Amino acid sequence: MEPLRIGLIGLGTVGSGVVRILLEQRELLARRAGRPIEIVKVAVRDLKKAREVSLPADLLTEDPLEVANAPNVDVVVELMGGLTPAKQYVEAALNAGKHVVTANKALLCQHGDELFRLAKTSQLCIAFEAAVAGGCPIIHVLGQTMTANRITAIEAIVNGTSNFILTEMYHNLEPYDDAVFKAQQLGYAEADPALDVDGTDAAQKLGILTLLALGTKVTPDQFIVEGIDTIELSDLGYADELGYAVKLLASAKVVDGKLELHTQPTLIRHERPIAQVDGPYNMIALTGDAVGQTWFSGMGAGQMATASAVVSDIIDIAVGRAQLTFPLLTTEPTNPLPLQPLEEISRRYYLRLNVEDRPNVMAEITGILGRNGVSIASVIQHEAPEPDDVPNPGPSIVPLVIMTHRTTEGQVRAARRELDSLRCLREPRITMPVAD
Amino acid sequence: MEPLRIGLIGLGTVGSGVVRILLEQRELLARRAGRPIEIVKVAVRDLKKAREVSLPADLLTEDPLEVANAPNVDVVVELMGGLTPAKQYVEAALNAGKHVVTANKALLCQHGDELFRLAKTSQLCIAFEAAVAGGCPIIHVLGQTMTANRITAIEAIVNGTSNFILTEMYHNLEPYDDAVFKAQQLGYAEADPALDVDGTDAAQKLGILTLLALGTKVTPDQFIVEGIDTIELSDLGYADELGYAVKLLASAKVVDGKLELHTQPTLIRHERPIAQVDGPYNMIALTGDAVGQTWFSGMGAGQMATASAVVSDIIDIAVGRAQLTFPLLTTEPTNPLPLQPLEEISRRYYLRLNVEDRPNVMAEITGILGRNGVSIASVIQHEAPEPDDVPNPGPSIVPLVIMTHRTTEGQVRAARRELDSLRCLREPRITMPVAD
Repeated sequence: MEPLRIGLIGLGTVGSGVVRILLEQRELLARRAGRPIEIVKVAVRDLKKAREVSLPADLLTEDPLEVANAPNVDVVVELMGGLTPAKQYVEAALNAGKHVVTANKALLCQHGDELFRLAKTSQLCIAFEAAVAGGCPIIHVLGQTMTANRITAIEAIVNGTSNFILTEMYHNLEPYDDAVFKAQQLGYAEADPALDVDGTDAAQKLGILTLLALGTKVTPDQFIVEGIDTIELSDLGYADELGYAVKLLASAKVVDGKLELHTQPTLIRHERPIAQVDGPYNMIALTGDAVGQTWFSGMGAGQMATASAVVSDIIDIAVGRAQLTFPLLTTEPTNPLPLQPLEEISRRYYLRLNVEDRPNVMAEITGILGRNGVSIASVIQHEAPEPDDVPNPGPSIVPLVIMTHRTTEGQVRAARRELDSLRCLREPRITMPVAD
Repeated sequence: MEPLRIGLIGLGTVGSGVVRILLEQRELLARRAGRPIEIVKVAVRDLKKAREVSLPADLLTEDPLEVANAPNVDVVVELMGGLTPAKQYVEAALNAGKHVVTANKALLCQHGDELFRLAKTSQLCIAFEAAVAGGCPIIHVLGQTMTANRITAIEAIVNGTSNFILTEMYHNLEPYDDAVFKAQQLGYAEADPALDVDGTDAAQKLGILTLLALGTKVTPDQFIVEGIDTIELSDLGYADELGYAVKLLASAKVVDGKLELHTQPTLIRHERPIAQVDGPYNMIALTGDAVGQTWFSGMGAGQMATASAVVSDIIDIAVGRAQLTFPLLTTEPTNPLPLQPLEEISRRYYLRLNVEDRPNVMAEITGILGRNGVSIASVIQHEAPEPDDVPNPGPSIVPLVIMTHRTTEGQVRAARRELDSLRCLREPRITMPVAD
């Protein structure tokens, strides 16, 4: 059978992993794909750079458009990331009649619907298992194995970097900055980890899952997105004392016909499977009306887990499966769900306030919460250190941790605004929701 | 587009669930399948029996061969179970040119290779997601999302009944018989739960997974198969004290080019994900050379979870994906792995012996273990009750729990034979391996 000819745009960490699998497992893959898979063109940023994998020099180019337009390429694998110019290259590849495999979650979250339409008008497909939770085949699950179900809820840990950092903090009592440094040393975090730790990456992945599973296009600017970059070690300790783990949870649920979406550090009861996912692993919990609860877990980041997802997509195209699945998986949403206004999202909350240790403070705080309809379920306040233990005596500052009963985001935000005006409060003021 | 016409053999619990989904979600399924799905013929055991789902009387027949041979049926869904006569009906369906969907693990474990060949010679497919871990799409995972990997290990909890019983015993301190009764009340266990609790069902599923993932056909008579029916509440307590859960674990691993297979109640460290799967849930942990460790979990039993898997297979056939995947997933094993002789399988072990509480007993037991090369890692022996607490005084019997260092199955079996001749030992004598 004719080989499937691959053009690669981007030969960084994941690209090198893809090349390694394609070269080292050539026979196994040909058997599973029913035909050989060949790399025929690769665009790199700098031809002179030393590389992890060796490819014949005549396969390499510095011009991604050369790959997108090469007449001998059947499938363009885009692994450069980012919105611009990646979008241009993907469009060029589709316009030149090539299928596309991509790991680019930012691109798909922002322009997925548009690119999907473009691909479908040319009877081409875009395969993107690697864009969400590399080691965890959630796109295949949504496109194929959950087809007998209406999905009613998605709960996901989809940022391996954040999960690694939170795990390090919790298990080794490392402060946030040390955990970030360690994640960078181990290659789990970029030199600039901003998009990982501020929740953007997880929110983009949630956007893709929501489009596919719930037929509704959402972008991160439309829902609550908070990262782990404000969480301190003590928050993990208090949560633990209360029976909870803290995870960066991306959640989409249908509640009374409305879509409730948020990506936030969230308290999750220790005994739930999603609370037990540690290190750079991801987990996606899906609820379907027939199958009930299901959980899928694997490495969320890392060279070979992501490369494995890219190669499985290439094989799907070689076999012809991806071409069948893609148009059905990405049919235009027929009934997009209305978003629940964020003020009306109803949950329990964890609050940590740093307060002056003097009379009446507790009364002022509980008064503000009460007036805003936020009812207190439990409180942790440990004793302040003795004054002479403190180097610069002044009013002692003590942490006050409050777990609320169920209330709305709107009420909590109103209470927080009022608390901000209290002179007895110091930074930081941590608010985290509690998963149902 | 032409509808896909379904003939059903068996309208019991799962069959009724399939009919419910097909009727209630007709529009959703047609969209996801790209064509309508219609039920055109259903074989039942007794036409007069009252049923959970109502179907027009002219669709029903008591003759399964009528379904298998019906000219207007495209896909035969076999949900009667068992080897005979199910095999005959599946063969008839294939010979009549129909695709087959089945949930029959006994049939596939015993005759899968033969039926797969028959289907392939007629360019038909057999889809069987529901045969292993209904709510957990492991067949799709093996056929599609793990294709870039060489699988090196499978660890699976695939008998929901056993897992429910062990969970009840552990969390509610219920004796084995009470837990079995409760499983039957809740519909998780058959009136005769023998094949579930003796390990046969899990071993058959392991056989199917091993054929697909490791290219080697094995049947339960070729490897160690033990059930949970000898485990007592006290074993779960001692295991817990040592830091382990007890699960019915089906395991296949490639060790130095040989295949190590067993299905046994096994001690698993509490912190491992597979130790935390409770109730009627299943989990399958796969290790691939590229992706690393992955975990898939969902309901293992139950009407709608299994029905969900059956319907997703029907949709796969309607779309045309199953026809592409099936011949590649079930290619004849090119290099079946040799089985590790069971005597040479090397693990740690948990032993519980009931011994007479008198001098020298410990020396005799440890002597036998030592002579057989079984080295002791730790011992739990609690004090015997005071003699006057015992209604019929005689020699007190006390449980002695021993955790060994790594040793072989052969050495443990030799030691057990020698221990059997000791007069100071009483029944039962429990031996369970410890997962690496």
